[in-house]
Amino acid sequence: MLDFAFSMPTRILFGSGARSLLERELDEQPVAKVLLVYGRESARANGSYDDVTGLLDARGIAYLEHPGCREDPDDAFVGAGAGLALDHGVDFVLAIGGGSVIDAAKAIALLAANRTRDIWAVHAARQGFAAPALPLGVVLTTTGTGTEVNGSFVIRRRADNEKIAFSSLSTRPRFAYCNPDYTITLPPQVLADNYTDILSHLLEQYFSMEDSTGIVDAIILEAIHYLLRNTPALQTWKDSYGFRANTMFASTLSLSYLFSCGKKVPWILHTLTHALAARRPISHGASLRVVMPGWLVWLSGKPAYATRSRQLADKLALSDSSQLGRYFLDHFALMGCDPHPLLSDAEKAQMVTRLSADTDFLARANLDARDLRCILDWTHHAC
Amino acid sequence: MLDFAFSMPTRILFGSGARSLLERELDEQPVAKVLLVYGRESARANGSYDDVTGLLDARGIAYLEHPGCREDPDDAFVGAGAGLALDHGVDFVLAIGGGSVIDAAKAIALLAANRTRDIWAVHAARQGFAAPALPLGVVLTTTGTGTEVNGSFVIRRRADNEKIAFSSLSTRPRFAYCNPDYTITLPPQVLADNYTDILSHLLEQYFSMEDSTGIVDAIILEAIHYLLRNTPALQTWKDSYGFRANTMFASTLSLSYLFSCGKKVPWILHTLTHALAARRPISHGASLRVVMPGWLVWLSGKPAYATRSRQLADKLALSDSSQLGRYFLDHFALMGCDPHPLLSDAEKAQMVTRLSADTDFLARANLDARDLRCILDWTHHAC
Repeated sequence: MLDFAFSMPTRILFGSGARSLLERELDEQPVAKVLLVYGRESARANGSYDDVTGLLDARGIAYLEHPGCREDPDDAFVGAGAGLALDHGVDFVLAIGGGSVIDAAKAIALLAANRTRDIWAVHAARQGFAAPALPLGVVLTTTGTGTEVNGSFVIRRRADNEKIAFSSLSTRPRFAYCNPDYTITLPPQVLADNYTDILSHLLEQYFSMEDSTGIVDAIILEAIHYLLRNTPALQTWKDSYGFRANTMFASTLSLSYLFSCGKKVPWILHTLTHALAARRPISHGASLRVVMPGWLVWLSGKPAYATRSRQLADKLALSDSSQLGRYFLDHFALMGCDPHPLLSDAEKAQMVTRLSADTDFLARANLDARDLRCILDWTHHAC
Repeated sequence: MLDFAFSMPTRILFGSGARSLLERELDEQPVAKVLLVYGRESARANGSYDDVTGLLDARGIAYLEHPGCREDPDDAFVGAGAGLALDHGVDFVLAIGGGSVIDAAKAIALLAANRTRDIWAVHAARQGFAAPALPLGVVLTTTGTGTEVNGSFVIRRRADNEKIAFSSLSTRPRFAYCNPDYTITLPPQVLADNYTDILSHLLEQYFSMEDSTGIVDAIILEAIHYLLRNTPALQTWKDSYGFRANTMFASTLSLSYLFSCGKKVPWILHTLTHALAARRPISHGASLRVVMPGWLVWLSGKPAYATRSRQLADKLALSDSSQLGRYFLDHFALMGCDPHPLLSDAEKAQMVTRLSADTDFLARANLDARDLRCILDWTHHAC
């Protein structure tokens, strides 16, 4: 087990009846003027927008709005949000939505505190932001990303479609109000994408290279197993509060970094997935489903991952860990997902070339161009 | 799943090489004068005292000392500590030790902030303390209690030997430096007591009465199973860093209240154990071993706990959940524990009378005097 530091300061306010917890939390925050960040339609459709503005109105807390956040928010959206916050003296940022909205709100809170609208200026100089982010809160309306409970966020660079990951202790939300009922209006394909994302976070952290993280591995493996054996319940999401609640909490825990304690996680799957998404207009969940089976098959053939592959295969009652790829392909069908679009040879070659140039990543993940190609090839063979 | 609020703000600094993390943490705290709280010999024997005072000296941070904390610290000890803190203008309390030392430090931090030495004055009035506790940190030298990561503490009332539980958000430590190497000098009986305590916390939270806390139950059950299958390794504690580290982290997680999320936990086992300890000079671990088997047998016969009892029995490959009591008795022998001292009829009668008067507890736990007697009787039958 490697040395580590861990905390989870975000106050999780959980449940369909947790509105009173949110009220108390709002009363304890130093809030005078709020910037609400949200998407296009869902926050109004699921009731979260009305709930939040109702609470703010009742307290006489002023707010202004920055709606229209899309999936994979970019520099332009967060720059405009920071501009609004600076022009109006905002002192608290409140995200209403899922991963994209929360990530955008984190970027806005950090930019505004540092009195800039340009996220790349700081990134290019490889400096940290000097000032800690404005305090922020989250009203969660989807599952999947777990970003409500950590300081990480991903912003897309409009110029070349690259997704760039940031991380700061100061962008950890003060609170995250997680109400499973807000997810009732999510369409089936989004539910499946979210479920894939939770699984991906658990699997990535499970497949680290450190030995002797026994207690952490044991609980990750059980969380994976819990999700996989309940996947068919996705079909009746709307009707089962218990399943929605357990999935939402599993999602939050899965990127709280609790499951990275004592480990160095190379995040191979997500790095490949981001490289794919830069080349194709495809959801994060769908791109995970393209890459994940090949990654699992590749893992099962590497001695460094042999024990964990076998343990996962045993847990899923597979006779052999090489069947993991096929198992997950079948599992995606259980989620009601559309068949994944195959990678072309040209796409694979582009991805390998681009990722091979990232020597930091290759060293961290202990892989080479042939490994990358092997991962990307497998799904073709299986189909 | 019940609505809940959860956070884990204590920064866990974990590992034998995590000294640099502790240094950074000390540099970030607003510390001018520290009160060190520790026990009698172990902090000097395991090196933690020298490590901490070395870091404080190197930073020119003044400190004074309140040594001599015993197991189950009482009102006199914490009152004297609060007096020291008040007389010398202490602004930070640092505990070096295990559960008793940390609990005492929490009480001292809360008393000093409220400018009093009398913990019962506030308790008797059933008021909360008005001022939040002085900030406090922890250097952990045992496993078992998990108190390093929550706001709860237990203080013994010297007048009648009762243990009284307190809880405050403000007594959650700012940081907990958890170095598995500090535990090397613990004697075998203390290791066994700690291990019993970790198991007891997991089992108590597992056996709540709420349905549909699936993800939480799954990971608790796996943590229990992890400990039970590794128990024989207690014999070679000193030689296995990995086992020490995993056990220490399991201990921290087990009372972080992560495993109580979505549940109402009646804490039956601990309530009985405290009642026993008030009557006998017996360690917390030993008293848990006296009561736990009967509690498990009683649980297995109650319909409300039938599903969870069966799942635990399945996980342990027992044919029937009524065997759980016998299994744990055998398991205690594996830990190298001395045979537990049996309860006399007089003791049992006293405990039942006393606990039956606590109508809050009976209602919360949904049990009556006959249940209490049943739990206390079983161990006799098995021997």
